[in-house]
Order: sequence, then C-alpha cells, then structure tokens
Amino acid sequence: MVGPLYRSVKKMNISILGAGNVATHLARAFSGAGHRVAVWNRSETGLLPLRGDLGCFCTVDMAALPIDTDVYIIAVKDDAVASVAHLLAEATRKHPHFRSLVAHTAGSLPMSLLEDCFGHCGVFYPMQTFSKSKPLDYSKIPFFVEEKGNQLKQLARSVSEHVFNLTSEQRKVLHLASVFACNFANHCYSIAEDVLKKIGVPFTALLPLIGETTDKVSVLSPLEAQTGPAVREDQVVMNSQLQLLSGNPDLQEIYARMSESIIKFKSHDRL
Amino acid sequence: MVGPLYRSVKKMNISILGAGNVATHLARAFSGAGHRVAVWNRSETGLLPLRGDLGCFCTVDMAALPIDTDVYIIAVKDDAVASVAHLLAEATRKHPHFRSLVAHTAGSLPMSLLEDCFGHCGVFYPMQTFSKSKPLDYSKIPFFVEEKGNQLKQLARSVSEHVFNLTSEQRKVLHLASVFACNFANHCYSIAEDVLKKIGVPFTALLPLIGETTDKVSVLSPLEAQTGPAVREDQVVMNSQLQLLSGNPDLQEIYARMSESIIKFKSHDRL
Repeated sequence: MVGPLYRSVKKMNISILGAGNVATHLARAFSGAGHRVAVWNRSETGLLPLRGDLGCFCTVDMAALPIDTDVYIIAVKDDAVASVAHLLAEATRKHPHFRSLVAHTAGSLPMSLLEDCFGHCGVFYPMQTFSKSKPLDYSKIPFFVEEKGNQLKQLARSVSEHVFNLTSEQRKVLHLASVFACNFANHCYSIAEDVLKKIGVPFTALLPLIGETTDKVSVLSPLEAQTGPAVREDQVVMNSQLQLLSGNPDLQEIYARMSESIIKFKSHDRL
Repeated sequence: MVGPLYRSVKKMNISILGAGNVATHLARAFSGAGHRVAVWNRSETGLLPLRGDLGCFCTVDMAALPIDTDVYIIAVKDDAVASVAHLLAEATRKHPHFRSLVAHTAGSLPMSLLEDCFGHCGVFYPMQTFSKSKPLDYSKIPFFVEEKGNQLKQLARSVSEHVFNLTSEQRKVLHLASVFACNFANHCYSIAEDVLKKIGVPFTALLPLIGETTDKVSVLSPLEAQTGPAVREDQVVMNSQLQLLSGNPDLQEIYARMSESIIKFKSHDRL
C-alpha cells in the first residue's frame, strides 16, 4: 500500500439506500475516501448521524437523490432488497437516460435479483460483521464485487486493499467457508462453554487461549497451526475424551468426526 | 484488581526445572512478582537469557539448587516429567528435612505422578500457548492448581487474577473443553481454507471476520453470539450448502452434525 488509497481513484457520486449497520459504515468509508455520498432511508431514523457527522445529503424521498449519481448501493436487509430495488426503478424511471450502476450488498443474494429492474447492475459485498458504534479499519476488510465493468472494483479499491471479483455462484462457496470459519468455530466455543459448566469454570477462562489460537492463523496456515490430540494421533487421549462425552452422543459424534477429519487433512497435506 | 497483585503476597523461593517455553515464561512471571527464582536445566541451552535478562541463579547441577526452595516447579515436556521428578528426588534425598512442595505444569498429567517421589506435591497449570519471544500479560492467564494446601494458589495469585482449584479429574474436562474451543475451532478454519481454494480466495480474506467472531465472545456468551443459517433454521441455505459439499461426504457429515447441534443448543437454552 502506497499512501492513502483514494488519492489515485476517481471521485464518484454515490447514493446509498438504507441507514442500517452496513449502510452507515459504507457511508463513512466512501466519505473518508473523498466520494460525494447521498443517503436515502424509508424513515428519518438512522439518517441523523449521517447528516450530522458526515455531512451527507440525506433524504426520505428517493426521487430527491442526486440525478448525477454514478453508483446506487442498496444496503438493506436481505429480504428488503427486492422491494427497495423496485422503488428505485420507479423513482428513476423519469430520468431520460438512466444508466447508473445499481448494486446490492447482500452476500447471499444473486446479482440476477437486480437484472429485471436495471440494465447496469452488480453486487458490492463487504465481508465483515458491522456494528454502528464500532469503528473499523476499512482498508483491511475484503470486498467481493460482481459486475460487467470495473466501476465497483474501483469504488472498493478506493477504500480497501482487499478486493476480489466473484460471481454469484462463487459467492455461495465464500458463504459456505464463512459458515465453517465463523458460525461453526463459534459453536465449538458454545460446546466448550457447556463442557466447562461441569467443573464450574467460566467460559472466559478460555479466552486467552482462544485469542492465541486466532492470532496464530494470521501468521501460519490453519493446517500448520493445528495442535491437539487428533493431529498427534494420540488415541489414548482421544478415547479418554470420547469417554468423558459418553452422556452426550451428539457431542461424541462431533468429536469423532472432527478428529477423523483433522487426521485426514494432515495426510492429505503430506501427499 | 487493586494495585499490583504481588504486593500483598509472601515472597517465595522458587526453583524451576526446565528452560523451555513454559519454564521461561514462569521465570519471567515469578521474577516480575518479586519472588526469588532459580532455574535448573539439563544443558546450558536456554539458561543464558534467564541468567542475563532476569538475573536468575541458573545451574545444570540439580543438587546446586537453593536448599531453602519453597516450591519446585517441573516445567518440562509431558513425557520428561517423570524422569525429571526422579532426578529431583535423587538430588534432594540428602536434605535432612525435605518438605518442599514439588509441582508439575502438565495439564494432561495427574498429580499422582509425583506422589511416589514426594510427600508434598501438586499441579501448577497455566492454560496458554507459550512462545519464548512473545510477551504475555500474565495477569490475564488462567492458572489451574491442584494441591493439599494453598501454597500454589498463593503463588498463582501473585501473578494472575484468574486462579482456579481443579482436581486431576476436573482437569481432564478442562482439556476436553480446550480441544473444542481451540483444536476444533482451528480445524473449522482449515476446512474454510480448503473450501476457499475452489474459488481462488486466500484464507487471509476471512481473518477480519474471524477476528470479529472471536471478539464477540469476550462480551457475549457464545450461545448468544451464534449467527448463521443453522441458528436461523434456514433450511434453504443449509440444503444449498450441503449440496455444495456433495463431493466430500466427510465435510457434509460435519456440516450436518454441527448444524443440528447448533439448533439443539438453541432450544436447550429456551427450556
């Protein structure tokens, strides 16, 4: 990275639809990168901080969004994307030569959802969990874009160092990976918490070890970082741990399948 | 926590056996808390930084360890604990009234391993992954102690805010919990890396999301922090993701078992 990314990027006029977590963070990121940002929301709720802190043009009237918008970003909940897209198509029907790009930010929805309404559409998916109150370093967040041209890629590059082109089919695979890395890893924490209840140790006692485990995969691949009885093929410890779980067949099954998989992954790596 | 912990704790004479990662960090932690620390190691390797940086008394002759040692800590690899214990029993046989406490630091070994050699023994287990070069905040590390008296507890409290009494049987349960929270969570990362290879996205793209997932469980319980298709009972997404894994029955099985377990944990919580 050489200096602030946005210096070399063409400034755009961006209209964001929505004022939730993703919309608010994108408004901050785009403003910070020097783009001109307008925000529409169904109600005044959520618009106040965007108007106040960022000085964005904010409106509850979609037709009032700037006519010279380069990119519209629909950043609303997954199940509201289609209806907001229809409202936007309605609101822009009067523009004689409407050719602006319209993108949504939903990782799990295909680009085709927008193709009925707009000639020029795309997906602009920042892969992160957003909370309005928590500041984030946008340059570290990976952005996955899908489009015919390269306008969304340019926009993403103006805020982040990590920009990838992905088709809707590829984004499904990405989502699957994030289910393992985040949802299933978190469930491993839940199981650990449940196990610890038996000995009256609070889950927080595991946090330093969890923190180190997570830190390790930023410098080693998870395959290299693997430790524990399964990767050592320590049958004595594995049998004793399965025995400890004898009251819970579901967790025994997960323990056995995960341990087998760890051993298989190791040998796969050796091939 | 009121001021530095060690101020209120009796200073002890500690002899550490070993000069590896755990031994080195314990020597730093004890010296930092104001205890007098001596270190024995089989070879000079590893002793140099302890002598230089910390000014510990260091020796390769076990019989030269201070005769007024309050606590001996055997901090060597699991499979060397028994032999070092025998060497120590040999070396201290000449002391006419040897009643010092001898403890090992191996989470997976029972206290009984030391009972044949010493009248007064215990386990002093700091639950963390240690690397010599990485500084750690010892006050955040949980220490699990097993002993007849409360000397190890006092020693642990002189460096950490998180000290627990655990029997050898309870420590097995703790180890099982750490296998889920660390080893199995890490394997979820490995699987994610494997899945991402199909679309040419590097594993590092998941790191911001993994970081947020881990941060969340320091403020919410993992059960409250759970997100994803399983906890939403979104069968459409789950079926589509199982379909994506159709080439790999092992991962399909893990996906199905983890998703079922997430749903069961949720209803268990509601009861």
